[in-house]
Amino acid sequence: MMHEAFLSELKSIAGERYVITDPREIDPFVTDHRARYRGTALAVVKPASTQDVSRIVAACVQAGIAVVPQGGNTGLCGAATPLSGKSAIVMRLDRMNRIRAISPAEETVTVEAGCILAEIQAAAAREGLLFPLSLGAEGSCQIGGNIGTNAGGISVLRYGNMRQLVLGLEVVLPDGTVLDSLRRLRKDNAGYDLKQLFIGAEGTLGIVTAAALKLFPAVRSRSVALMQIASVEDALKMFSRARQTFGERISSIEIIGSSYLDFVLRYVQGTVMPFAQKAPWYLLLEAGDTLPESDVGAAMENLLAQAFEDKLVSDATIAASLAQEEAIWKLRHGVTGEFKLAGKTMSHDSSVPVAQQPEFTARIERDILRAYPDANVMMVGHIGDGNIHVVVLFPHERFPDAQSYEAASDIIDAIIDGIVTTIGGSITAEHGVGTSYRKRLAASKSGPELTLMKSIKRLLDPAGLMNPGKIFLDADAR
Amino acid sequence: MMHEAFLSELKSIAGERYVITDPREIDPFVTDHRARYRGTALAVVKPASTQDVSRIVAACVQAGIAVVPQGGNTGLCGAATPLSGKSAIVMRLDRMNRIRAISPAEETVTVEAGCILAEIQAAAAREGLLFPLSLGAEGSCQIGGNIGTNAGGISVLRYGNMRQLVLGLEVVLPDGTVLDSLRRLRKDNAGYDLKQLFIGAEGTLGIVTAAALKLFPAVRSRSVALMQIASVEDALKMFSRARQTFGERISSIEIIGSSYLDFVLRYVQGTVMPFAQKAPWYLLLEAGDTLPESDVGAAMENLLAQAFEDKLVSDATIAASLAQEEAIWKLRHGVTGEFKLAGKTMSHDSSVPVAQQPEFTARIERDILRAYPDANVMMVGHIGDGNIHVVVLFPHERFPDAQSYEAASDIIDAIIDGIVTTIGGSITAEHGVGTSYRKRLAASKSGPELTLMKSIKRLLDPAGLMNPGKIFLDADAR
Repeated sequence: MMHEAFLSELKSIAGERYVITDPREIDPFVTDHRARYRGTALAVVKPASTQDVSRIVAACVQAGIAVVPQGGNTGLCGAATPLSGKSAIVMRLDRMNRIRAISPAEETVTVEAGCILAEIQAAAAREGLLFPLSLGAEGSCQIGGNIGTNAGGISVLRYGNMRQLVLGLEVVLPDGTVLDSLRRLRKDNAGYDLKQLFIGAEGTLGIVTAAALKLFPAVRSRSVALMQIASVEDALKMFSRARQTFGERISSIEIIGSSYLDFVLRYVQGTVMPFAQKAPWYLLLEAGDTLPESDVGAAMENLLAQAFEDKLVSDATIAASLAQEEAIWKLRHGVTGEFKLAGKTMSHDSSVPVAQQPEFTARIERDILRAYPDANVMMVGHIGDGNIHVVVLFPHERFPDAQSYEAASDIIDAIIDGIVTTIGGSITAEHGVGTSYRKRLAASKSGPELTLMKSIKRLLDPAGLMNPGKIFLDADAR
Repeated sequence: MMHEAFLSELKSIAGERYVITDPREIDPFVTDHRARYRGTALAVVKPASTQDVSRIVAACVQAGIAVVPQGGNTGLCGAATPLSGKSAIVMRLDRMNRIRAISPAEETVTVEAGCILAEIQAAAAREGLLFPLSLGAEGSCQIGGNIGTNAGGISVLRYGNMRQLVLGLEVVLPDGTVLDSLRRLRKDNAGYDLKQLFIGAEGTLGIVTAAALKLFPAVRSRSVALMQIASVEDALKMFSRARQTFGERISSIEIIGSSYLDFVLRYVQGTVMPFAQKAPWYLLLEAGDTLPESDVGAAMENLLAQAFEDKLVSDATIAASLAQEEAIWKLRHGVTGEFKLAGKTMSHDSSVPVAQQPEFTARIERDILRAYPDANVMMVGHIGDGNIHVVVLFPHERFPDAQSYEAASDIIDAIIDGIVTTIGGSITAEHGVGTSYRKRLAASKSGPELTLMKSIKRLLDPAGLMNPGKIFLDADAR
């Protein structure tokens, strides 16, 4: 009854057709894209403007109903999926997808939060510039979600993560106030840098509605290589040499474990092993220069020839065409769907200090195999950022029921978290906390850190209505 | 009496000789380096460790005495100078000047807050790496102060400001708790990024005691040029061309107004005009490549030859030696002392969106000269960041007393702030707020921004003892 009036109010703000209440239509928006989380919502609401977002949030506060902001719904931690049994709406900014302004002279673009990442990349490219955030979901994720999760991806070493790319933000606060910090300034030390609060806060402190972003000179000459390598130590040596050769021109440097590559070759259509033999590790290196006349290809050849001579690399291939570049990148990307077909997986997103990756990977493999000798421990990641994704795969039949899977998953979480914490790493490097990591967050951060995080949450959202139950367990945050 | 016991406690923590109470010895620490602000302090305390900082802060809380953290005391806004008549101590971290660790493989350095900036630069250079923060005071400013003020300088376009260079922080909170977020991680999305709160907070939310910082590949080939240019529009066109030529290799691009250069040539010893004639504007461009074999010099020559042909530049000089590079940079740097000799000055630190600098500079000059036809309006700044410093100079005898100077200063502040705010800029781009800008902050930020800043201050420092009266006027923040 009360909800009827509330829903009418939403409809009067957003328009009848933009307040979805049919359970079948709601379903995709209350399920995460890996179908691991499923929640409930009174409605999915699609406002057309910042002012409407503000009015909807105010209406939610009035009615005591929670707001779950959702971007492209491509997150991996359940941050954009409402909990079950809590009165909540899902807020989608799909209609707020305008590029408000783009300035080549300033190298800035101002966008609404519902813009698809790939469309921002394309808008920058049309001006001869680069928006460097790049990740698997770029064709469907929205920039608001990228900001809310402080997205990482394959170009962080060179350009920083999402946080480094934001110049200004417009945010609707948990009480409905519009915080307009949408300045396009490279330097601004007039008081606290408030926008930092909302980047990576997963919508728990407010809803990002627009952003001013940095652009960069486009990369105009490029070289992509794949190498076979004996160990993570050697991969770090190659990283160091690549740094000497290319300096800041390393766009991506990715490490791929042997079992991960085997998996990709077996399950991902159209992939081809470019080498005659196998190796324990593979290193994907992409270098790019903003100058078209720069011969990064020749530099890559010299780098690899020397490494081959010094026995640092056992074999290597340099892409000679765009198609070959794509074929190499295909060995790295796009397996989330295939994991499901292949068996039961447990995925992790750890980071450690860059130099400690040999220790990290060795201990991970040893300790997981000690606990589960039949596990397939796959590793792949951004070696320049110290960010290794560990994916543990079991055959479908290994766990007869959800409980046994969850029990094993908890044990493997504990193994990985223990190692990460000992080495001074992070249990979630780029995916965020969402619902997946909230129990484990407490174990990985110090008491004063957790206390301060929770008091910030309480300060901005005293009613606890902004994406409740995310990052912190509900009772914790209140 | 109460203070006796308090001072004894400080001595028992830091050691007798590290608690300075003699007014003559205290004097330099309660005066800012331009001698515009002078405050009072019960003592200057120099703790040896984070633990000692924590104990001292706890003792201050117990006694209700304020803490003013001070780095190298080189700030330009009075942020490190205690107020008068308030019971306060000045906290100096001079003894905490160890480089705790440096890792070439990780490209990180972990330092205590009392480290001098130039010593961190030198430590990085010894490893063949670069710590890119660079500013006039680098020989005496401390990294803790650089972090507290989110320092900018001449390399922000390429490497970001201080905020972008921090990976992790150790902070003593206003209640004495040590917040250990000293992780050396390139990616960490495990909850809110707390360190962002303390960067640029000018010690109002806690005391930074140590930091993990990013290093970069060193620049190994370099070219420095000075050009004569007709207008700020043309300077932006040159910036755009330089971007096409050098991409991310532009280390610095600085604009110098004619009257500023005249001033430098007249007052700064050892400076020489490198051109036969004057021009309205000068552009200093430094490009640098991490590869020694890269011919940035030839690229610079081509860039300037083409610009000369297109009449974008009327004359130019390229440094042919380190001495010539330094001679060019000398025309840009190091005049703060000389201003005092030359007359009465009013200095500003504005930023606007990069493309709006022509409008900004034109309006500034027009409106100030309209109000004060005898003013010498000098401009110099970081054109790649949209950060122009306006310095208004009057003869010594122009203002017979402090009141008349202050009255004129207020009028000029109002002129500049009005223009900055209309254009969507910042009244303090890199210097911070301190005491200088706190009145004007209120006019330049929106209500919701100010409200949120103040609630964060109250949340972290409910007793209002951390650097009180800075950023916010005292009554405001409580």
